[in-house]
Amino acid sequence: MITGKNYIGSQLVASGNKTYKTFNPESNQENEHIFTEATQKEINNAVDLASKAFKEYRTVSGERKAEFLNAIADEILALDNELIQTYCSESGLPEGRAKGERGRTVFQLRSFADLVEEGSWVEATIDTAIPDREPSPKSDLRKMNIPLGPVVVFGASNFPLAYSTAGGDTAAALAAGCPVIVKSHPMHAGTGELIASAIIKAAEKTEMPNGVFSNINSSGIEVGQQLVAHPKVKAVGFTGSIRGGRALLDLAAKREEPIPVFAEMGSINPVIMLPKALQNRAENLATTYANSITLGTGQFCTNPGLILGIKSDALDSFISSLAKKIVEINPTCMLHPNIVGAYENNKTKAIAQEGLAVIANYKENTQPNYASQIITTVEGKTFLDNPTLHQEVFGPYSMVVQCEDEKQLEEIISNLEGQLTGTLISDANEVANYPTIIAALQNRVGRIIFNGVPTGVEVCPSMVHGGPYPASTDSRFTAVGVHSIKRWVRPFSYQDWPNNILPDELKNENPLHILRSVNGKLTKEDIV
Amino acid sequence: MITGKNYIGSQLVASGNKTYKTFNPESNQENEHIFTEATQKEINNAVDLASKAFKEYRTVSGERKAEFLNAIADEILALDNELIQTYCSESGLPEGRAKGERGRTVFQLRSFADLVEEGSWVEATIDTAIPDREPSPKSDLRKMNIPLGPVVVFGASNFPLAYSTAGGDTAAALAAGCPVIVKSHPMHAGTGELIASAIIKAAEKTEMPNGVFSNINSSGIEVGQQLVAHPKVKAVGFTGSIRGGRALLDLAAKREEPIPVFAEMGSINPVIMLPKALQNRAENLATTYANSITLGTGQFCTNPGLILGIKSDALDSFISSLAKKIVEINPTCMLHPNIVGAYENNKTKAIAQEGLAVIANYKENTQPNYASQIITTVEGKTFLDNPTLHQEVFGPYSMVVQCEDEKQLEEIISNLEGQLTGTLISDANEVANYPTIIAALQNRVGRIIFNGVPTGVEVCPSMVHGGPYPASTDSRFTAVGVHSIKRWVRPFSYQDWPNNILPDELKNENPLHILRSVNGKLTKEDIV
Repeated sequence: MITGKNYIGSQLVASGNKTYKTFNPESNQENEHIFTEATQKEINNAVDLASKAFKEYRTVSGERKAEFLNAIADEILALDNELIQTYCSESGLPEGRAKGERGRTVFQLRSFADLVEEGSWVEATIDTAIPDREPSPKSDLRKMNIPLGPVVVFGASNFPLAYSTAGGDTAAALAAGCPVIVKSHPMHAGTGELIASAIIKAAEKTEMPNGVFSNINSSGIEVGQQLVAHPKVKAVGFTGSIRGGRALLDLAAKREEPIPVFAEMGSINPVIMLPKALQNRAENLATTYANSITLGTGQFCTNPGLILGIKSDALDSFISSLAKKIVEINPTCMLHPNIVGAYENNKTKAIAQEGLAVIANYKENTQPNYASQIITTVEGKTFLDNPTLHQEVFGPYSMVVQCEDEKQLEEIISNLEGQLTGTLISDANEVANYPTIIAALQNRVGRIIFNGVPTGVEVCPSMVHGGPYPASTDSRFTAVGVHSIKRWVRPFSYQDWPNNILPDELKNENPLHILRSVNGKLTKEDIV
Repeated sequence: MITGKNYIGSQLVASGNKTYKTFNPESNQENEHIFTEATQKEINNAVDLASKAFKEYRTVSGERKAEFLNAIADEILALDNELIQTYCSESGLPEGRAKGERGRTVFQLRSFADLVEEGSWVEATIDTAIPDREPSPKSDLRKMNIPLGPVVVFGASNFPLAYSTAGGDTAAALAAGCPVIVKSHPMHAGTGELIASAIIKAAEKTEMPNGVFSNINSSGIEVGQQLVAHPKVKAVGFTGSIRGGRALLDLAAKREEPIPVFAEMGSINPVIMLPKALQNRAENLATTYANSITLGTGQFCTNPGLILGIKSDALDSFISSLAKKIVEINPTCMLHPNIVGAYENNKTKAIAQEGLAVIANYKENTQPNYASQIITTVEGKTFLDNPTLHQEVFGPYSMVVQCEDEKQLEEIISNLEGQLTGTLISDANEVANYPTIIAALQNRVGRIIFNGVPTGVEVCPSMVHGGPYPASTDSRFTAVGVHSIKRWVRPFSYQDWPNNILPDELKNENPLHILRSVNGKLTKEDIV
C-alpha cells in the first residue's frame, strides 16, 4: 500500500507540508497518491540512523547480508501486480518492460547475495611475518575490503526498478556493508515507496539494524543537496543527467571532507560504420538501428545518438534506408511530460544548428507525451566545429555524421566527450585496417561493441557501465555487474594483529574458505 | 651530471628566467646548482609529448614495460655516489637513510616490473556468449584494466627517492601504461634531475616513446597548478601537506573534465595504550616511542603524533618515562629551513593552546636546522574541545592525551580526522575487552597496528598506505604496494570482439598465460 510517506528507517513519517503527485504519461493525468517531501529534520534522522546502523551492519557476515539481499528480492516479487501497475502508471512503460526490469532487479540482488555469501570479493591479501629478515624483521600484514559508511543513492528516471530504489547502486552498497539512503525519484515515487517497503520488510525479517535503509521523498533538488552535504554521508551513487550529476559532484568536492560520487550520466554512444560493412549491408543496418534508436522511446543511456561513416554511396543508401525504416515505427510514450518537453527543446535546439539536415521526422503523432523519432545528418567539419551537436538529445533521436575521410573520422572520435559505449560496425576482413580508429574509440568509451547495438547492458562481471567523464564521474569503476561493489569499499590493513581478533576473512584457519592471496599465491588453504 | 634544466621528454631545456637553488640544511648553506623553472610553453610541450606517447605506450606489452622499469632501477643504481651525495646535501638526511631509501625505490620499481611481466594484474574477466539464451542471446563480454592517460606526480619533501621522481606513484603509473610528468620537488631538485636522467636513459635503452616521462622544475605553486589544469592530464598523484593536496583536489574538481587526484596527506597516527599494557611495560613503551617519535627527525607521515591513554598511575609513569627518554636522544637535522620554520610555528601554536602542558623539551640544541623534540600532555576534554590540537605538528613532536575513561577515549577516537594509521598497545588478554575502541579506531584509519609503532611502511601487496580524508583524498586506494597501480587504470569491456583483434590478455588461447576469471572461474586455461 502506498502511503506517500518517507521511510526513516522502518518508520513511515511525513511531518512536512510540501507535497506532490506522480503523473501517468499514457493517460496524461496525475496519479492519485500524495507524497510528502522529507523535512530537514527527517533527513537528519535518516542519516543519524544510518550512521548508527553502520556500526553494526559493517560487521554483519556475508551469509547474513546474502539472506537480507535475497529477502529483498523475495519481497519485491511478493509485491506482484501492485508493483507492476504502479510502475506502468508512473512511467508510461509497458507491462512487459516492467516485468523484464523487475527480473533484472531481482537478478542483481541475488547476484550480490551470491557474491557476499561466497565471500572472496573482499580480496583478502596476506603477507605473513618474517621475524628474522635482515636488516629489519617483516611484520605480518593482512588486507581486505571494508565498507565506506552510509551511501546516498539517487535513482534514475528511466529505470524505476533496476537503477533506482533497490537497483544496482543500492544492492552493491548493501552487499558491501553500507547502509543506504535513497533519494526517491519524484517521477516514480509510488514505485519507490513499494520497493522501499519490500526492503524494510526484508530488513526486519532478517534482523538487520534499523536505519540500514531509508527512503526519502523529494520533488526538487534541495533534499538531495542536503543529503550529499551531510557530514555522516560517506559516498553517493547517481544515475541521471550531466547537469544533475555534476552538481552533486561539485557539492561533494566542496565538503570539509570530500566524498566519492559515482554518477553515471549522459552519453551519445557513437557508432562507427566502416565502408565495407555499409557496402554489404546498409539495408540490414538501417533496420537494426531504426529499432535500437526507438527502443524504449530512446530513453536508454546507451541509446545510439551518433552514427559516424565516411562519405560514400553506401553511406547515402544507409541514410535513406534509415530515414525510411524509422518512420515506419509507431511512436511510443515517454516517461513524463517534463521528459517530453526536454526532448522537444533539445531537438529544436539541435535542428536550429547551421548545417544540420533533418532526413526523417515522424509527423503524424498527436498523442500527448508520445515522442516522434527523428534522424538528422551533418558534415564532419560542421560537427567538429559545433560542440552543441555533441550534446545528448535524450529520446528517439540520432544524427548521422558524414565524414570526408578516415582522418576526419579519427579526429571526430578523438574530440568526443567520454562515452559509455562505442560501437564498431565492420566486415570481418576490414577491421584490421583501422587500428587508429579503434584506438581512438577505445580512449573515449567504457565499452566497445563489435557489430551490435549499444542498447542492452548485460548484468555480468565483465560488463563495464561507466567510462571517461562525462559518461561517469569516475571511470575507474563500473555501475553494473558485481564489481560495482568496489565503489563502496576501501582496502584496510591489519598489522601484527592477533589471530583470534582478526575478522574471519583474514584468520589463519580461513574459516570462510574464501580465495585469498597468501604471500603472493592465490589459495583457499589455511595458514600454518 | 646536474644541469638545472627540465627534461621535456628526452630534451634538456631551460628557456625560462626564474631560477632557484637547493639548500643543505646540515651545512646551512645553499647548494651550487642553479635550477630553471619550466615555462608555460615547456609545460605544454611536456603534456603534448606525454599525450602523444600515450598512444603508443598504452599498448606496450607487460614484458617491455618490465624491461623499462628494471632498466630505471639499474640506471638509478648506476648513479652511485653522485646520487647519494646529492640526496644528503639536499635533505640533511644521513647516508644510511639515503641508501636505504634508494633500496626501497629500486625494490618498488622491480616489484612493479614483476607485476606487469606476470600480467594477471589486469584482472581479465571473461563471460562467453550464450547464443541460445532465452528470451535474448547473451553477448560475449571481456573486461580488463587499461591505463587512464598522462599522470602528473608531485614528489614528497620527506622522501626524495621512494615517494618522489621514480617513487611509488611514478612506478605504478608507468607500470599501468601511463606516461608520467613529475613536478620536481624544489627542495631536492638535483636528486630529482639525477633520477630523471636515469628514467630517460632507461626509456631510450628500452625504446619507449619520447614523452613517456618528463621532469619539470618549479619553486612555487603555479607550475603544479598549470599541470593539473591541463586538459590532456588525466590523473594526479601527490604526497605532501593537507593544504597542498586539497588545493590540487579542488583544482582538479573544477576542471571541465574533473580528474582523479590521489593525495596522501597529513596524519597524526593515534596510538591507543590500553591500561594493562601500560601497567606492565610503561618503561619499555616509553623507550620504544621516544625512538619512534624522533625517527628521521619526526619527518614521517606515519609519525606517532598522538598518544591516548586512560588516566592511571601507569599512564603517569609512562609519561614521565617518555619525558626522560626523549631528551636523552640527540636532536637531528630537518630537511630544510622552511620545514624547521613550520615546525617551530606549529609547535608554538600548539603550546599556546590553553590546557596544554609541556612535559619534555630538548633545550640545549643550538645547531641550525636541527629540531628539538618535545612532548606535551592534555586532558581528554580539552583535546575534544579544541580542533587546533588535532592538527599535525610535522616533526619530532607528540602529545599524550589523558582520558577520563573508556567512554571518553572512544569519543576522542571517533572525533578524529581520517588517519593513515592507528596503533593499539595492548596486553594479549585485555584486547578482547575493548571491541568498541577497536571498531572506532578502524573507522578512522587505513591501517591498524598491534603492539608496534606506526613508523615503517612495508612495501608489500597487503599494505594500505592511505585512509579516510584527510589521510588521503580517496580512501579506496593505497599509495604503497603493487595494488597502488589501481589508481591509474580503468576497467574496459569488449563486447563480441573478434578473437584476433582482442588484446592478448583477453584472447581465447590466453597467450600470456595469465590468471583470468572465465565464466566465474579463476583459471589460466584457454577458452575452447
